[in-house]
Amino acid sequence: MKVGYKIWLDHHGKAFGDGPCELLRGVQKTKSLHRAALRMGMSYNKAWRLMGALEKRLGFALIDRKAGGLSGGGSRITPEALRLMERYERFRKEAVKALENTFQNHFGEVQ
Amino acid sequence: MKVGYKIWLDHHGKAFGDGPCELLRGVQKTKSLHRAALRMGMSYNKAWRLMGALEKRLGFALIDRKAGGLSGGGSRITPEALRLMERYERFRKEAVKALENTFQNHFGEVQ
Repeated sequence: MKVGYKIWLDHHGKAFGDGPCELLRGVQKTKSLHRAALRMGMSYNKAWRLMGALEKRLGFALIDRKAGGLSGGGSRITPEALRLMERYERFRKEAVKALENTFQNHFGEVQ
Repeated sequence: MKVGYKIWLDHHGKAFGDGPCELLRGVQKTKSLHRAALRMGMSYNKAWRLMGALEKRLGFALIDRKAGGLSGGGSRITPEALRLMERYERFRKEAVKALENTFQNHFGEVQ
């Protein structure tokens, strides 16, 4: 027996969680929402809509979308996004540890 | 901002959680899987299949199904089911408290 869980942040609906965090880490690395989406097997269109929905719920921009230019455009995460990602990752790590400990206290001896 | 979560027990797949626990509390109260399902807006057929699937994953019976008789049949939860329900409810209560505390520690000042 083990504990199963899903954790997310709610603000007027699902506002942030593992998927968005991974997607933004991908944007941070690849400088491209398109490439970040591809790495997760997600269409660019879906990733774009997801980011828009989360930004609306959160009330701030997660991605700076460049219009194009010599570099062919590209996306960067905003400082607010980075702050949220780091905070969420620290929260999630501690929350999972707390869940696992609580589970062990109650079900530790159950096979 | 608040924390969103789903918690369940996993044993060869989803083996127990809020829905099954509520359904079994209903059986305990009404002595009938049919009535317990109705109270949750669930079809008897779905409730019956759910119980069967969970029992298979857990490896023990949750419900004593009576064949009929003068009383028109009826269902009782097994002692093993009651033990699991009580344990799960204690675990869940503590897990939620731990999640909320962890969330407050990391996001307490975020509106």
